[in-house]
Amino acid sequence: MEITECAEILKSQNDILLITHVRPDGDTLGSASALCHALRRMGKRAYLFPNRGVTENYMDYTAPYVAPVDFRAKFTVSVDVADIGLFPDGFNGPVDLCIDHHPSNSGYAAQTLLREKRAACGEIVLELLRAMCGDVDREEADLLYIAVSTDTGCFCYANTTAETLYAAAYLVEAGADNKGINKKIFRTATKERLALEGMVYTGMHQYRGGAVTIASVTLDMMERAGATESDCEDLSALAGKVKGTKVGVTIREMEPGSCKVSVRTGTEVNASAICAKFGGGGHAMAAGCSIEAGCTEAERLLVAAIDEVWK
Amino acid sequence: MEITECAEILKSQNDILLITHVRPDGDTLGSASALCHALRRMGKRAYLFPNRGVTENYMDYTAPYVAPVDFRAKFTVSVDVADIGLFPDGFNGPVDLCIDHHPSNSGYAAQTLLREKRAACGEIVLELLRAMCGDVDREEADLLYIAVSTDTGCFCYANTTAETLYAAAYLVEAGADNKGINKKIFRTATKERLALEGMVYTGMHQYRGGAVTIASVTLDMMERAGATESDCEDLSALAGKVKGTKVGVTIREMEPGSCKVSVRTGTEVNASAICAKFGGGGHAMAAGCSIEAGCTEAERLLVAAIDEVWK
Repeated sequence: MEITECAEILKSQNDILLITHVRPDGDTLGSASALCHALRRMGKRAYLFPNRGVTENYMDYTAPYVAPVDFRAKFTVSVDVADIGLFPDGFNGPVDLCIDHHPSNSGYAAQTLLREKRAACGEIVLELLRAMCGDVDREEADLLYIAVSTDTGCFCYANTTAETLYAAAYLVEAGADNKGINKKIFRTATKERLALEGMVYTGMHQYRGGAVTIASVTLDMMERAGATESDCEDLSALAGKVKGTKVGVTIREMEPGSCKVSVRTGTEVNASAICAKFGGGGHAMAAGCSIEAGCTEAERLLVAAIDEVWK
Repeated sequence: MEITECAEILKSQNDILLITHVRPDGDTLGSASALCHALRRMGKRAYLFPNRGVTENYMDYTAPYVAPVDFRAKFTVSVDVADIGLFPDGFNGPVDLCIDHHPSNSGYAAQTLLREKRAACGEIVLELLRAMCGDVDREEADLLYIAVSTDTGCFCYANTTAETLYAAAYLVEAGADNKGINKKIFRTATKERLALEGMVYTGMHQYRGGAVTIASVTLDMMERAGATESDCEDLSALAGKVKGTKVGVTIREMEPGSCKVSVRTGTEVNASAICAKFGGGGHAMAAGCSIEAGCTEAERLLVAAIDEVWK
């Protein structure tokens, strides 16, 4: 579908309900809220389906858009939702229009605007808003900046393209508070998160001359750090940060004697093949599995599995 | 000076020596190397004055441009060098042309192209290269991307503007390997650095309900982490990362019984007033001092000083 076609569809509708994905991130929330704001700017009634997974960082931004219980929608649009399995709790469809950037989009909606090469759904919604309204206002600029920056780790991840950076530049020019948003989202962490990171960093082990780095997050560490689930975002990236690492493994003890494992690799080794040894799977460079053992035993088993896969 | 005027001056010269600042960072090295490459592309002889402070991250990028001992320059250009006190070891001037973005530039050069609002000198050199050559090639794009991204913490620091992001977008479009550069510079750290960060995070103390965070880096931590000076960049930012912190203090033990202190504040408290109590100084939001005591005693003295300044 063309952007202009999508813009025409939205212009022709009213009483619009916007759907974000379960365990919502900055991209789904920022993109949906910006679209909601723009639809209201065009004189329409538009709301976000209440998503109980919204974390503290995003509450203030999304609060003005959450639907009251008596809102009756005539048209439903999902934003950044790849499949029905990712619908938020309490929503079962159907969806009239889906706006998404995931290559894995399952085509569940009646119509779909899909741009697989975009790093963030926010980039697509920016184009859409410019087609629909001619510009974006300051609120929309903030919301779309949140969308684009969070999906790219503040333009640091490998998915960042020239288009992503052009979008960000346009949004800052349109008034997005990139300074405040960056400080809040990327340059601040809870004391508990930093304490947990500290324990993970000091307890990492290396094998094969540093090519394999294994980090463990035990229940005991969680308790000593006073950390909760919200302090555990992106822990699987920590082992791979160590210079020289080709295989970065993070073992997280979920309950005593039971661990969730995430494996990140470069092109040298297949992460999925390592995880398959434990009944898990995933992609060539990012995979996961579960191991019924404590962290120390899981680490021993993983080192052996890596040695078998990586001859 | 206008960009075009600066371009004309450079076009009229040959045998050009480029000066980077002492303790060189990505901006001075990337900007000077890109300019050097462009001057050579125009058929000129151009070299960088050898800077012994180049760190490992930047060695491969700058190596092709370092002047041989017998190079005799007819024209000297400094890049990102605010004052003669920042000349690299072994260089004493004079400088014919200075290209810089520091508001504190002392005007030491015969002519100066100064753009104080630019986050990075790389943004200015990008404009200059486009005026001089019409475009930038892939090597220059890499070097200028390094300049622009490092001076803005990968577009996360408060100095990042729409122009910075437009420059980055243009450079990625011109072929800059932002994926590889980001991975190497922003998403990789030595095992020793991470171990040191880990110890700092787990050993931080908070006061006044979390508004004051004090982090210590002891000689013992350095030894246990196996860390060297090159692992200690930007340690003073760590305390301020903790959510809720208004005053972030980092105490670094330089020798037994002697500490270097860095204080970072928001608008609530004057960092310079705190450091003045110990004979130090600096800016309202970033200041430093030395204290002749161990970390524990220094921390006690600093807490008392903060209580006096912040009533």
